[in-house]
Amino acid sequence: MAKAKTVKGVAVIGQSGGPTCVINQSLVGAVLEMKKHKEITGIYGAVHGVKGMLAQDFVDLKNADVAMLKAVAATPSSGLGSVRKKVTADECRQIFENFRKHDVRYFFYIGGNDTAETAHILNEMAKQEQYELRAFHIPKTIDNDLRVTDHCPGFGSAAKFVAQAFMGDDLDNRSLPGIKINIVMGRHAGFLTAASALGRTNKDDGPHLVYLPERPFSMDQFIKDVDAVYKKLGRCIIAVSEGIADENGVAILQKFASSGEVDSHGNIQLSGTGALGDVLAAQVKKHLGEKYKGLRVRSDTFGYLQRCYPGVLSEVDAKEAFEAGVAAVKFATSGDVDGSVAIIREKGKTYKVKYERTELKNVAKETTHVCDKFINKAGNDVTKAFVEYALPLVGALPKVALIKADKIKKKK
Amino acid sequence: MAKAKTVKGVAVIGQSGGPTCVINQSLVGAVLEMKKHKEITGIYGAVHGVKGMLAQDFVDLKNADVAMLKAVAATPSSGLGSVRKKVTADECRQIFENFRKHDVRYFFYIGGNDTAETAHILNEMAKQEQYELRAFHIPKTIDNDLRVTDHCPGFGSAAKFVAQAFMGDDLDNRSLPGIKINIVMGRHAGFLTAASALGRTNKDDGPHLVYLPERPFSMDQFIKDVDAVYKKLGRCIIAVSEGIADENGVAILQKFASSGEVDSHGNIQLSGTGALGDVLAAQVKKHLGEKYKGLRVRSDTFGYLQRCYPGVLSEVDAKEAFEAGVAAVKFATSGDVDGSVAIIREKGKTYKVKYERTELKNVAKETTHVCDKFINKAGNDVTKAFVEYALPLVGALPKVALIKADKIKKKK
Repeated sequence: MAKAKTVKGVAVIGQSGGPTCVINQSLVGAVLEMKKHKEITGIYGAVHGVKGMLAQDFVDLKNADVAMLKAVAATPSSGLGSVRKKVTADECRQIFENFRKHDVRYFFYIGGNDTAETAHILNEMAKQEQYELRAFHIPKTIDNDLRVTDHCPGFGSAAKFVAQAFMGDDLDNRSLPGIKINIVMGRHAGFLTAASALGRTNKDDGPHLVYLPERPFSMDQFIKDVDAVYKKLGRCIIAVSEGIADENGVAILQKFASSGEVDSHGNIQLSGTGALGDVLAAQVKKHLGEKYKGLRVRSDTFGYLQRCYPGVLSEVDAKEAFEAGVAAVKFATSGDVDGSVAIIREKGKTYKVKYERTELKNVAKETTHVCDKFINKAGNDVTKAFVEYALPLVGALPKVALIKADKIKKKK
Repeated sequence: MAKAKTVKGVAVIGQSGGPTCVINQSLVGAVLEMKKHKEITGIYGAVHGVKGMLAQDFVDLKNADVAMLKAVAATPSSGLGSVRKKVTADECRQIFENFRKHDVRYFFYIGGNDTAETAHILNEMAKQEQYELRAFHIPKTIDNDLRVTDHCPGFGSAAKFVAQAFMGDDLDNRSLPGIKINIVMGRHAGFLTAASALGRTNKDDGPHLVYLPERPFSMDQFIKDVDAVYKKLGRCIIAVSEGIADENGVAILQKFASSGEVDSHGNIQLSGTGALGDVLAAQVKKHLGEKYKGLRVRSDTFGYLQRCYPGVLSEVDAKEAFEAGVAAVKFATSGDVDGSVAIIREKGKTYKVKYERTELKNVAKETTHVCDKFINKAGNDVTKAFVEYALPLVGALPKVALIKADKIKKKK
């Protein structure tokens, strides 16, 4: 990290991509830290990310009420408004021009890999034009798929939502047994689907099967897996990533909706909200419905609830999101540097992290995946290593208990 | 209520219908109260309700560990296992015979209107055969559609889940604006869908439109409603009951899936999990897609998450569910009585309830609906009277805050 040479000027901060429960923690962490640095002459919040930067749509966060900011930190979703826009080279120049007008010298962008890329492009442009700019990316994504960092702010809270959803659904399924398929967010990375397993405590707790996009999905094997669990337990809870695909990378939804195989069980809408769950449920009914009379098969697609549900929050996640915002500002004001904040998990028995700087190019564009040691050999569950990795990010889950009582002897 | 004449014998308690977050509170409330009454010689938990009663599948709750029972009380879903079975006259006789064998003299059945009916039938049968039985129904349903009682245990917690889901989704939608349709449980009664409005605090908070099964649904009017909101706010959050139907009682899903109107936007699966949301989203895109370029329309179907989600609990609901269980046992041991427990809301500014006994026949079979004063004139929202009715049942909701800050002046 280069030393010295701080720069005086305005800071712009924005939020981008899908919102999370803790992205406002990063925003407020960064803003409160900026207020401590005299070289930061103004703190501008970009409304709806690059859209606001293109339109000079900024709000004054330096003079904003601190109590309000702290309340916003505890509020899910992106308080400044988000955006899903990829910026063109022309738009980058436009943003850059607006930065010049307002003497913007610090730029913080909170989001995923696309967000990091935008920060990277703007940063490169500034270098080319020898314009002093400290561009920093602050990681955020429920998908947990950013490179370098051990994990991403936003993941822990979404993982908690998913883990609790499966705890509840498992209890529900014990009460009214059957086969239940739940579709979880995450098209390319299966971390959130894997989190379905975090609430298991008893040997027969669901989910009994977990399918991630990191492994090719075989419908035949799926049916066999479900059959084996149902035969043993008389019920089966299944976690499925929305992004499952076959060994050639063809999405399962596409494959079974277009093969005609599903038509006999009702038309499947290709782009429907619950379509993948419907496809899988139809296949289970088709292949196991005769074997198990009166088989009850249901599916749910968790949808948007997973990313912004208020009141279900990982304390660790909230704290780290705040600290990642603080860290970005500390790095940016320490000298002639740019980059992204990475959370590094320290070795040892107790969970502990530190924040390091990494180059923007290391985080931009490409993403990462659930690693091999987190997935079981059969490709239908997670390992203990995954639970050990993810549980500290989620924190304590609600305690639940099953009835343990002696049987009453039957009478003739 | 007839006085005197208590009876000595075994008590059977069971759970029936869809599980809730607090149905175990009623179970444990009743069991702990029963332990105080010497005339109750045994406490049998029926495994999976009438199924267990038919098969003499009982567990001994009298001698069960009290700490375990208390932990179960705080656990969502039906700890004894539930059932959706309607009993025939023959089966009632079979149950009744099993009751005789074990000298069962008290019968408590926790559930909705069907559950009350089973208790009613068994009770009538006992009367005919002059067999002393105290049959009691303990109310439970997230649908909140039982007669006589002011509200039903289970509703408050499910309503809290739905209210928070809409709070989060509203924040999500502010961040990435568009039209969002959420399908909520409740085929015939709209209480849970109405609960979507309980978290609103700002004037422009969603849901902006709420459609209950108590009002005929017109697709034309729906499109007009959505258009008006979107024009004004640039976004629109909509709560829709899964049971909406037209003025002739034809389900909207059935109507639009079979009319061919939807085919041009993809085939709609009649029984699909997200089908109703897909139909409504397709209609919105069809009618408003040209008017609003790049219109973002999404739908979610909340599904099973609504009824058993651990960690999102109404404290009032949990307390009342427990007390309803206690009340049933107190009534049953007070003399020659049978019936169902009704929660009566006392008049006055502070929320307060008492528990009264009502006849089984008053609660069995038939259900109730959201009353007129809770629905606005246009039939697309709830009234302040509904919020005043429902909010005390849900309790405090998470505090959320929006950013309030001055605009930065644009520069040329």
